[in-house]
Amino acid sequence: MTKNITIAHGNGGEENNELIKNIFYKHFENEILSKSEDAAIIHNGELAFTTDSFTVSPLFFPGGDIGKLAVCGTCNDLAMMGAKPKYLTCSVIIEEGFSSRELEKIVRSMKKELEINGAMVVSGDTKVVPKGSVDKLFINTTGIGEIEHKGISAHNLKEGMSILVSRDVGAHGATIFAAREGIELESSLETDCASLYPQVKALMDAGIDIIALRDATRGGVSAVLNEWAKASDVCIEIKEEKIPVQEQVKGICEMLGFEAVDLANEGTFVLAVSKGDEENALEVLHQTHETATIIGSVSDQHKGKVILNSSWGTKRFLDLPTGELLPRIC
Amino acid sequence: MTKNITIAHGNGGEENNELIKNIFYKHFENEILSKSEDAAIIHNGELAFTTDSFTVSPLFFPGGDIGKLAVCGTCNDLAMMGAKPKYLTCSVIIEEGFSSRELEKIVRSMKKELEINGAMVVSGDTKVVPKGSVDKLFINTTGIGEIEHKGISAHNLKEGMSILVSRDVGAHGATIFAAREGIELESSLETDCASLYPQVKALMDAGIDIIALRDATRGGVSAVLNEWAKASDVCIEIKEEKIPVQEQVKGICEMLGFEAVDLANEGTFVLAVSKGDEENALEVLHQTHETATIIGSVSDQHKGKVILNSSWGTKRFLDLPTGELLPRIC
Repeated sequence: MTKNITIAHGNGGEENNELIKNIFYKHFENEILSKSEDAAIIHNGELAFTTDSFTVSPLFFPGGDIGKLAVCGTCNDLAMMGAKPKYLTCSVIIEEGFSSRELEKIVRSMKKELEINGAMVVSGDTKVVPKGSVDKLFINTTGIGEIEHKGISAHNLKEGMSILVSRDVGAHGATIFAAREGIELESSLETDCASLYPQVKALMDAGIDIIALRDATRGGVSAVLNEWAKASDVCIEIKEEKIPVQEQVKGICEMLGFEAVDLANEGTFVLAVSKGDEENALEVLHQTHETATIIGSVSDQHKGKVILNSSWGTKRFLDLPTGELLPRIC
Repeated sequence: MTKNITIAHGNGGEENNELIKNIFYKHFENEILSKSEDAAIIHNGELAFTTDSFTVSPLFFPGGDIGKLAVCGTCNDLAMMGAKPKYLTCSVIIEEGFSSRELEKIVRSMKKELEINGAMVVSGDTKVVPKGSVDKLFINTTGIGEIEHKGISAHNLKEGMSILVSRDVGAHGATIFAAREGIELESSLETDCASLYPQVKALMDAGIDIIALRDATRGGVSAVLNEWAKASDVCIEIKEEKIPVQEQVKGICEMLGFEAVDLANEGTFVLAVSKGDEENALEVLHQTHETATIIGSVSDQHKGKVILNSSWGTKRFLDLPTGELLPRIC
């Protein structure tokens, strides 16, 4: 560990993992935590349990706000473990002087999103801190879900399996960057922020055997694929031209010098299924987003690694993102 | 609601209740949340679920630090519902540049306190925000406990029942104030911050029928007694001279113009039991703190009110604290 914590330690990529491993896992060590899934599985495998703090800036952005994000983020982590979001806690830290009207607007967004998930806030906490102690408002949501599809895990990928994304990638990261920098977009670009439980339920109802499932938040699709390749000790091969990216997102990536696969999403997931299930899964995903795509498959070429295959036949490793990505993206 | 949120809205007293009622309860409305207990009872009454964010300043203080506080605070809310703390999530928001060594020290304190509770952190989240977006470090802990003693509730107090405090009151509030203001105390005053599950277990093992139980955090003993009087529609009569307060705490109260019963505690609880259980309960509490005391009883004189009876025979209402108490006390 470096002497001081840097922005890179919160990037959802390599330095973030280092911080978690060297400080939190080291002292909190236990079997459940070390599985590193989106949510912990507890209470005899019946329940999923997950937490997220939201520090996004600005608080309101095209397609959403911190309230919608806070409910989606936590409910999605539950849905990604095959769990139905059920009970949430909501803890807010508010800077003195914050507008009551804006707070109510945020809470209303939360309520709307809770309804989509069929979940409720059952406990809360409110702290108000003096001006300058926090930038406007942070929210923590922690959730409990009831497991409906057991065995979803980053550790179960095997050769031949198919990898899909549920829609085009990078919209949240690009939207927040544009909103923060005051970039006027002619386009209608907005965050992908959305509750994913309905799509997961549709996959389950269609009888798809979900092997692995993860929403591509901080660190983007790159982080998910790298974590899966490592956890399952397999190679994931992606066809680069298959990765769906909106034109406006591509434009912002060029400005930033980032790749769309490294950008955060808040309503986009990566899915691993057996080859036999891939067409059915794609059909289900298309009901929500026509940009859903089969982007690659699992091989045994370079275990623990992700390979990007270009349409010109070249290959390169897609690594875990490093360095200072966008802070306060979620 | 006022147009903007003020420090008073986080005081654990009247304005805090107003904020919670007018914004959060209003939109999140449901039967579990509206019970306003220390923790929500979920999953067929098997589990307790509670959240707390910690913003205490300074991070390190006599007798504890933010890590100890974060584990005690959440585990205590579970213990106060007769639940054994079991699973915790830990979400930290760190200011860029924060010392890794201090972070590790905080995590070590958390670990030590988790062991006292027999609980573990099973899921976490780490955010790093740019300098100035947060003051050093905030922690959210959210916990699940397994209910061992059903039916503990603020709504069950009845005439004739006895009210006890588990030790002298106000130590946490006084300690933080002194540490923040750089007041040099000749004394050994330190926070009461401690895990309360062992004491609750001792009460249960002794066969005490716990009617109501609450740790006197923000808003102090005053807030607990007022909430109970209201929730159960009874009068709580307290003998003022029976309330145990350390001399140093009294001194700091005089400086601040506060009353010790309004100051925050982090390891002190108020207990309601039947008259027949009071001596046994006191005996159990004395095993941990010899300052534990029977401070009053439930009557029907002024329903919904708390009365302080002085040793000179005068009476006054003890109201819910209002105004700007100490911010960032927990």
